Amino acid sequence: QIKFLVEGEEETGSRSFPGLVARYGHKFAADGCVWEGAGLDLAGRPELVFGAKGLAYVELNHRGLASDQHSSVAVIAPSPVWYLVEALASLRSPDGKVLIEGFYDDVVPPSEADERMLEILPFEEEAEKERLGVESFVGGATGLDLVRRYFFEPTCNIAGIDAGFTVPGASKTVLPRSALAKVDFRLVPDQDPADIVVKLRRHLAKHGFEKIEILGHSMEHPVRSPSDSVIGRAAVSAAEKVYAHKPAVAPLMIATGPMHPIAGTLGIPTVSPAGVCRPDSNIHAPNEHCLIEDFNRTIEYTVAWLEAFGSSE
Amino acid sequence: QIKFLVEGEEETGSRSFPGLVARYGHKFAADGCVWEGAGLDLAGRPELVFGAKGLAYVELNHRGLASDQHSSVAVIAPSPVWYLVEALASLRSPDGKVLIEGFYDDVVPPSEADERMLEILPFEEEAEKERLGVESFVGGATGLDLVRRYFFEPTCNIAGIDAGFTVPGASKTVLPRSALAKVDFRLVPDQDPADIVVKLRRHLAKHGFEKIEILGHSMEHPVRSPSDSVIGRAAVSAAEKVYAHKPAVAPLMIATGPMHPIAGTLGIPTVSPAGVCRPDSNIHAPNEHCLIEDFNRTIEYTVAWLEAFGSSE
Repeated sequence: QIKFLVEGEEETGSRSFPGLVARYGHKFAADGCVWEGAGLDLAGRPELVFGAKGLAYVELNHRGLASDQHSSVAVIAPSPVWYLVEALASLRSPDGKVLIEGFYDDVVPPSEADERMLEILPFEEEAEKERLGVESFVGGATGLDLVRRYFFEPTCNIAGIDAGFTVPGASKTVLPRSALAKVDFRLVPDQDPADIVVKLRRHLAKHGFEKIEILGHSMEHPVRSPSDSVIGRAAVSAAEKVYAHKPAVAPLMIATGPMHPIAGTLGIPTVSPAGVCRPDSNIHAPNEHCLIEDFNRTIEYTVAWLEAFGSSE
Repeated sequence: QIKFLVEGEEETGSRSFPGLVARYGHKFAADGCVWEGAGLDLAGRPELVFGAKGLAYVELNHRGLASDQHSSVAVIAPSPVWYLVEALASLRSPDGKVLIEGFYDDVVPPSEADERMLEILPFEEEAEKERLGVESFVGGATGLDLVRRYFFEPTCNIAGIDAGFTVPGASKTVLPRSALAKVDFRLVPDQDPADIVVKLRRHLAKHGFEKIEILGHSMEHPVRSPSDSVIGRAAVSAAEKVYAHKPAVAPLMIATGPMHPIAGTLGIPTVSPAGVCRPDSNIHAPNEHCLIEDFNRTIEYTVAWLEAFGSSE
């Protein structure tokens, strides 16, 4: 017996999903859960993950002046843009460490088993640097340090910032009345998004930025699921049979999905098996695509892990 | 004999004007220069100024990634937005002091005569705070400190900043590939805008932000002119006769104009007499306006200072 669940709110934070699971938990009962697919890595290896990072996405707003001013007045009028820039700069150090008090309190460090998983996990450093167009990674990390950071570090990212006059190549001397930033925190187990927002608010107040308004958007709990579950082992063994490359098994995905209500709240063993997505598939971007051969291979693989799961004890 | 000069490039930095003055200086020869009018202050006092701040307006661009990324990658991919925010935060301290090495080297402090001018210059602190909608001024300045800062301090202002996803009230988890900021520096005598840009470039390189591209826009030299010139005394004495309030005589205007080629290069004594503009005239903004009574009074005043200048030795 197979249950399908199509959840249409993921891109807007899955606000209804935890409530649905709390109310109809019995209808979700299962021996295992197969989450929407991971993908193939730059070398074409099938990727499997057993969890997801969480997310706290906030919008920071500061309106500090009654109206836009001629910028000559900036000599005496406090600038909302400077205020926001200084607040942002207080949140993170250039090596990526988040400076909000207590931000790392609930972070669970990788276990010895995790370390062994990371040691054998292939990571194409040079190819990834070339894809991104960068000379080095955040904090200059390389090797095992880089892989550990990739999966087990939370982030503080500026997804957007806007204030004043921004037409490229032109000039206007204005002191803008307001400024806005979007900040997303990717969270790792066992950080709690609501707790992170509380700590952010406390940090801003403590550092003199209490005038910044915080508007919460997407909130997701991070979660991990054991990789040696029946469904997990079936997904890994099937990948070893179907694909030309040995699978890359990772502790969790670095992106976010509403996996916590299933794998955490209900405790159903969960795995994201390999799928059709590659790093150069332009996800969420123009010319998003997958390859027909990957599509067909995913069908073959789905049959294989269903058979493996069905025939296990 | 009166010469009129209408210069149409002021809003875009008057790039041709210094060259024109250098080439046709003899045609500009004059006993005095009356610059486009200052205005009336919040209390209706006629304002006269004897100089202008300078300007160095730059656009800072940083494209640090080959393309926009899903923000999950921010855990390892250096963020162009963080890079720019950190660069900006290095430029200025929250009390308004500019931290660029050598920024204040050429600043001429107010003389004793300037200090006496500032002491009697009215400044409506409470009304100005109310107009701006702020609780205090930059650096908490008040009284004579505030007035001194107003006229004799240069600034570093963020006129605009832009990166990534900025739609208010919505969320998108993106790691933007590039970020842009507009920064204007208001300069005081004897700072040189080209020198300030050189020092900015050196500062960014020294602090690890050498990847930021600097695009120069408007550049203006600051300038002062003596207030006891014949034309200056005529403008002041006429204001005392025509207006109901005692004039507010200031050392220079806090905004910028291409006054340096005339008052500096050619050394022609220059004054900006009172005009039609008030602080609530919405300059450069919707519903820009002046009052008919101010317009008529300015005509009356123009006749008065022409007479005063013509009858002086």
